[in-house]
Amino acid sequence: MNDYNSSAHPRVLEALAGAEGKRFPGYGTDEETAAAAEVVRRLTGRPDADVHFLAGGTQTNLTAIGAFLRPHEAVVSPASSHIYMHETGAIEAVGHKILNIPAEYGKATPAAVREAVASHADEHMVKPKLLFISQATELGTAYSLSELTALRQVSDEHGLFLYVDGARLANTLASEACDLTLEALAGLADAFYIGGTKNGLLFGEALVITNPLLKEDFRFLMKQRGALLAKGFLLGIQFRALLEDGLWLELARHANGMAARLKEGLRAAGVSIFVKNDTNQVFLYARPDMKPLLEKRILFERWGPEEKDGVPIRFVTSWATTEDEIAAAVELF
Amino acid sequence: MNDYNSSAHPRVLEALAGAEGKRFPGYGTDEETAAAAEVVRRLTGRPDADVHFLAGGTQTNLTAIGAFLRPHEAVVSPASSHIYMHETGAIEAVGHKILNIPAEYGKATPAAVREAVASHADEHMVKPKLLFISQATELGTAYSLSELTALRQVSDEHGLFLYVDGARLANTLASEACDLTLEALAGLADAFYIGGTKNGLLFGEALVITNPLLKEDFRFLMKQRGALLAKGFLLGIQFRALLEDGLWLELARHANGMAARLKEGLRAAGVSIFVKNDTNQVFLYARPDMKPLLEKRILFERWGPEEKDGVPIRFVTSWATTEDEIAAAVELF
Amino acid sequence: MNDYNSSAHPRVLEALAGAEGKRFPGYGTDEETAAAAEVVRRLTGRPDADVHFLAGGTQTNLTAIGAFLRPHEAVVSPASSHIYMHETGAIEAVGHKILNIPAEYGKATPAAVREAVASHADEHMVKPKLLFISQATELGTAYSLSELTALRQVSDEHGLFLYVDGARLANTLASEACDLTLEALAGLADAFYIGGTKNGLLFGEALVITNPLLKEDFRFLMKQRGALLAKGFLLGIQFRALLEDGLWLELARHANGMAARLKEGLRAAGVSIFVKNDTNQVFLYARPDMKPLLEKRILFERWGPEEKDGVPIRFVTSWATTEDEIAAAVELF
Amino acid sequence: MNDYNSSAHPRVLEALAGAEGKRFPGYGTDEETAAAAEVVRRLTGRPDADVHFLAGGTQTNLTAIGAFLRPHEAVVSPASSHIYMHETGAIEAVGHKILNIPAEYGKATPAAVREAVASHADEHMVKPKLLFISQATELGTAYSLSELTALRQVSDEHGLFLYVDGARLANTLASEACDLTLEALAGLADAFYIGGTKNGLLFGEALVITNPLLKEDFRFLMKQRGALLAKGFLLGIQFRALLEDGLWLELARHANGMAARLKEGLRAAGVSIFVKNDTNQVFLYARPDMKPLLEKRILFERWGPEEKDGVPIRFVTSWATTEDEIAAAVELF
Repeated sequence: MNDYNSSAHPRVLEALAGAEGKRFPGYGTDEETAAAAEVVRRLTGRPDADVHFLAGGTQTNLTAIGAFLRPHEAVVSPASSHIYMHETGAIEAVGHKILNIPAEYGKATPAAVREAVASHADEHMVKPKLLFISQATELGTAYSLSELTALRQVSDEHGLFLYVDGARLANTLASEACDLTLEALAGLADAFYIGGTKNGLLFGEALVITNPLLKEDFRFLMKQRGALLAKGFLLGIQFRALLEDGLWLELARHANGMAARLKEGLRAAGVSIFVKNDTNQVFLYARPDMKPLLEKRILFERWGPEEKDGVPIRFVTSWATTEDEIAAAVELF
Repeated sequence: MNDYNSSAHPRVLEALAGAEGKRFPGYGTDEETAAAAEVVRRLTGRPDADVHFLAGGTQTNLTAIGAFLRPHEAVVSPASSHIYMHETGAIEAVGHKILNIPAEYGKATPAAVREAVASHADEHMVKPKLLFISQATELGTAYSLSELTALRQVSDEHGLFLYVDGARLANTLASEACDLTLEALAGLADAFYIGGTKNGLLFGEALVITNPLLKEDFRFLMKQRGALLAKGFLLGIQFRALLEDGLWLELARHANGMAARLKEGLRAAGVSIFVKNDTNQVFLYARPDMKPLLEKRILFERWGPEEKDGVPIRFVTSWATTEDEIAAAVELF
Repeated sequence: MNDYNSSAHPRVLEALAGAEGKRFPGYGTDEETAAAAEVVRRLTGRPDADVHFLAGGTQTNLTAIGAFLRPHEAVVSPASSHIYMHETGAIEAVGHKILNIPAEYGKATPAAVREAVASHADEHMVKPKLLFISQATELGTAYSLSELTALRQVSDEHGLFLYVDGARLANTLASEACDLTLEALAGLADAFYIGGTKNGLLFGEALVITNPLLKEDFRFLMKQRGALLAKGFLLGIQFRALLEDGLWLELARHANGMAARLKEGLRAAGVSIFVKNDTNQVFLYARPDMKPLLEKRILFERWGPEEKDGVPIRFVTSWATTEDEIAAAVELF
Repeated sequence: MNDYNSSAHPRVLEALAGAEGKRFPGYGTDEETAAAAEVVRRLTGRPDADVHFLAGGTQTNLTAIGAFLRPHEAVVSPASSHIYMHETGAIEAVGHKILNIPAEYGKATPAAVREAVASHADEHMVKPKLLFISQATELGTAYSLSELTALRQVSDEHGLFLYVDGARLANTLASEACDLTLEALAGLADAFYIGGTKNGLLFGEALVITNPLLKEDFRFLMKQRGALLAKGFLLGIQFRALLEDGLWLELARHANGMAARLKEGLRAAGVSIFVKNDTNQVFLYARPDMKPLLEKRILFERWGPEEKDGVPIRFVTSWATTEDEIAAAVELF
């Protein structure tokens, strides 16, 4: 059970079907893409933002970070972050070191950022220049408004860009436990992306660049990294369908709700859940005798080596998760 | 008029619609992808080939070439090739020089390859290691079986890998004027790709690696370059629909036919066509007084600065091109 | 007090003076360089080794690692290693992630290597491929024969190359406390370098490649990284003078002896020394009231932020260190 | 006969000998280096310039260009330039394409630059951003003041940085035929280097950055590329000795004079010289029966494949070239 195991939401597919027989200019220069970008600008409250649509998260991260930094500049990021652990060195492959900092349930703290900066003092070391965080984090936790404000402040103190990986951003916005709104996020981050792949689209992420220093020539970088889709209009059409009428928040709300139900069921079954969060990721320890099940990656994902409490595993619910699936998952335990 | 201005062919969309409600493992580890790869192996006559599906052409080229070469090794390629001129330095961005060689209507010759190799003799110069060609070329021309065999031979003489960009491969296979079959190509190239984006898919290219030396760890490289699509099954489903029952050749035949009709109409209108080819690209000189029309890139594409014979422009027909569009295009002249 | 604050040893300068009026082929193709390489082969007991002379340590590390690895392959190394902390991301700038592992006084352990490999299991993560260690380490400690043998074994288990940064290799060979000989090292490592810059030369490191898989085209990589010195004969002449008659071990012995004397003096003065080693690096805590002295980097080097025991600082003795300097250093405390 | 086949000039060696017994701070933070930089600032008439000393030309070019450009930005340069042909793809290895333009005897023209810029119009192509030229060129020719002024103008028109490789700069300044002074050059270029390796030093190039936009964090880039010499004071000492009292121009004048004498002797012997220049490079055609001699690279260098007029070869004279060597060279013909 994860959030990239299904095709797109019917309303997205319907919008795509509407393109049949039409002709579009290439590489995202079409009107659907322009309209989708306009929706993003409206929702974020940033009429001045540059908006680009890319096919996937790793691609977005490497293209953006590779565009934003000079060769000696480094990323500061929790060790649990996707770019540090699960993107096969994509950031290093475009030349940049990632300085991993200790995190609390996936979240960077100002103190840890400050320490990373302080320990890089001269030209024999890389220069920390961009703080990378995820909202929601890889553990499903979310930064509050005050937490993100504090990270903005420490970034300003040290001349860092603040970049937010929003592969699961909608899940935080749809969570009542999280007070960080999209507008607030857009006002605090220099750049961030709104994930579509994991929230109802076939594929697609919407990168929003608010800092004017980071906007120049971005399409050149997209093309150079293989991230400028020939039929860019497919991204525009999908994002319009997702964002224009609030579908994205509906879908995220559903995913969060299914995760809540799963946690409830697991707790009732006596299963130990080891991360507290309010979004769509559920982390638990599987009993040793469940090992044979662990091969079925389609159902869940192993999340590290066996610990004393069992094998850590992760379920991720999505817009497509059904009550039957939740019930089946609970029954495994 | 180009071959990436439309959504996908109805039969491809229908196949995608069939995925609704299903669940798939991620990153191309699903059965649809496995089945599509199997079809590719069957069609190419290479049961041992590694087949990978990627989202676009630039992405495929940079991932493959970046995977195949060591840092000091260079690509030999016609100056008209896509990687040299139209991919924003994607190959250089992964560290490799492209040695451009003179070409005849877009086609590399053994003599030019030999000269490029001969002029790179020691460690003060890059080491030519991969011959990059396109079938069809960027001018719509196609290598014959004997031409490709000769390039294989010169590649063997000098230890070069032979890589074929097949963004428009189907158009050559569907052309009666071209005697180079898919099986023959697969027997001669070390790696090549079968383009889907420009031949009926929403997006997608099928990379075929036949040389065992080039297969190792390729999925690592895909992930690192942002080319491992989370919902990889979308590529598998599309390619199955395209290849399994010969749809791809039907579509290419249609595109070629439309191009033939366009050329016929243009010639009748006294327009000068400046490249002879039998696929789906049409190159002509527009009269100086047609300049105002040249802004409408959706209809055609400017192909360089004004020459004495007029402004060179390019039409590319596709599976979706209609007779009405051909008629409208001819009427412009 | 460090080991790169002086010109070269008089016997090295004398050898260089002997070049006056002579003519040499360029880029290390001269007879002096060939002779120096032959001496290295003899001393290491590896008549088959490839030997290359480069100007500095960072240059050697980035050229070698960049030559040895494919883009998705990573380095495993203690976090205290020079490449991880003090080379401004040079390895990442040639595209490779460094996986830092916990170390004991600067030394990697087989268990830590095993764990790093075990936690990188699929194509979503980099592939550990080269174990980087330093002999002596950045803390002046040295691997014993059995320790290095164990690292070789774990490297073999997991297909890792073993690379040894020998900027201060001579100091371990000249130490009676270290049983790892040059021949044994050469038999265990796939590649390593013998440092000259910090042991009597103006500049220069001798890279020794014993694994045939790593030898191919290395001079191309040297040239590409700017590491092929035009007047390569300067390196050959210097290394001959250093190695041919055992000067390098004499110099290292002197440096070690001066360090021993310094430690003795400091202990007598009640200073707390916080790393035990037998080479030429001395680590101690300065009292808080000594802070004004800490600016004089020519005398010693600050080694991190203030701790409860004082400010950690480092002295490094060299072939040029005099008894007066040692006395002056002790008097500071 | 070339200009990197000898050790250093006696006055340079003497200055180095003066360092014996002294202690210097590392990495170019010493007073000798500061003094040498001050001399460079005085000679160039740019008290505001940043001056960095590096070990070699390829290293200087790749460090500077890699520091100055963003990933999608390209270099425009004559195809005969050193970076295009003879640095093993060093510039591409740091990610940048070189657009080669036609040149007249090694010299770029404004028209060719303009055409290169004009043909790179959108994000599907790299963005020309830096014009690279050499003074003297690789053919020994030199830009006049008006020629360089015109290149500055075309650079300004198109937002290009102007970078000058001055490996043999002194030879143009010492030539009466060249009216481009050091001050004028420093006023026109954004950055350039004064070559030392080929003009009397053991090794060393002095990079001068006058454009404030290009200065930031340059030492980080030097360290990252392995170009920050530990014993940087060696560069400072050498350059002081070379520049402070005009030695560099004396040496270049000698080299130029020897080349003039060689050309005179060759012409008298009926040898065909195929490039007209007034510096220290001599290009001629060797008769076919001289082929056995062509292996002796220490005497001269082959300069391409055999042509109808013979085998092109190059002699380069230097500060160390003697009249006997000239006589011996002439006698070969």
